[in-house]
Amino acid sequence: MNKKVVLIRHGESLWNKLNKFTGWTDIELSEKGILEAVNAAYKLSNQNFIFDIAYTSYLKRAIHTLWIILKKINHSWIPVNKTWKLNERHYGALQGLNKDTTALQYGEKEVYLWRRSFIAIPPKVQLSSKFFPGNDVKYLHVNPNILPTSESLQCTQNRVIPYWKKIITKTLKQNKRILIVAHGNSLRALIKYLNKIDDEKVVNLDIPTGHPIIYEFDENFKPLQYYFL
Amino acid sequence: MNKKVVLIRHGESLWNKLNKFTGWTDIELSEKGILEAVNAAYKLSNQNFIFDIAYTSYLKRAIHTLWIILKKINHSWIPVNKTWKLNERHYGALQGLNKDTTALQYGEKEVYLWRRSFIAIPPKVQLSSKFFPGNDVKYLHVNPNILPTSESLQCTQNRVIPYWKKIITKTLKQNKRILIVAHGNSLRALIKYLNKIDDEKVVNLDIPTGHPIIYEFDENFKPLQYYFL
Repeated sequence: MNKKVVLIRHGESLWNKLNKFTGWTDIELSEKGILEAVNAAYKLSNQNFIFDIAYTSYLKRAIHTLWIILKKINHSWIPVNKTWKLNERHYGALQGLNKDTTALQYGEKEVYLWRRSFIAIPPKVQLSSKFFPGNDVKYLHVNPNILPTSESLQCTQNRVIPYWKKIITKTLKQNKRILIVAHGNSLRALIKYLNKIDDEKVVNLDIPTGHPIIYEFDENFKPLQYYFL
Repeated sequence: MNKKVVLIRHGESLWNKLNKFTGWTDIELSEKGILEAVNAAYKLSNQNFIFDIAYTSYLKRAIHTLWIILKKINHSWIPVNKTWKLNERHYGALQGLNKDTTALQYGEKEVYLWRRSFIAIPPKVQLSSKFFPGNDVKYLHVNPNILPTSESLQCTQNRVIPYWKKIITKTLKQNKRILIVAHGNSLRALIKYLNKIDDEKVVNLDIPTGHPIIYEFDENFKPLQYYFL
């Protein structure tokens, strides 16, 4: 039987709702986001999914989505590993700005590329900015030189994939059943890598909030396919 | 300045409310228990407590108390270590029974000793019982020979203290700020050990639900005193 890993993008956050660039800004789930998490739990529970371990980011919209799911599927006790390596892509100086206003200011095409392309890097934040992770208590234990001031999807992939290879794959090979709750772009980076999606085609890859994605691997842990539950 | 560790007994569970022996039975918080957790968070937040790491048991009344607190004090991202070593004392064949009915059946004095004394062990569960942890998915990775069929406070101490010494003390020595959310008897076992309370006097040690207990250590990590926040 194929091995499965379940990926879930957190439920809607208050800034998704306000149409703002969020990135590493630590914004709470909206009421709709909470319902999306409950609904994801319901789908997993209906299919009798069992997990041995979970991974999530340092951001509360992902952590709380995971907690809601674990509680509802009676898995609160499983180990949860939190890592900034699974954080959303850092949106640099766009964080906190409204997406439509930004499109008016920088042009729709530029903003589209920042949002969807593999290599475009949005304007960086200053090191003194509250949006630079080095000024956030959560990242004080991380060498500030490796913390981002802005990221392309490629930059995001450069931290997500080593974590996947070194940490998550190890537990997959121990036949542990894995649940990952992360973000639109950290999941796009992972799926692009696993499914070998071209740089050009990844523009069209969008991950809806709160929908469990089942990733299947063959017996040699080779990625095969993914689909929505 | 003295080093501090914060200990909290989970909020009231649905079985505390029904006056049942709970032990390792995995019972959810009551509405009052949820409010107690919120109130504990409020007290910690008022005093600007900051934590680097948290420890809790495998039981949802403790885990969910911790989650409520972490969310309210904006600490959802800190690492949480869950361990069965911090579980409530296993109440053996008393689990699921009403405390008053049990007192009528076995005599008040006997039940009082089972509840409060250091060495009294309640009647054991059968290995085939649903109350034996070896039959619970949460403990499948644990050698069933070391899983309890019933525990005295002393038995509980025999698993809590090695975990304290080997695991928690190590992070304390790294100057990490520690939050522990556990159970009436796993905390009694810990406090008895740290404060060198006599076997006879521990009968009078009772831990209220949801009240943060501040434990102070000197610069050599020697336990000094504890008090309620």
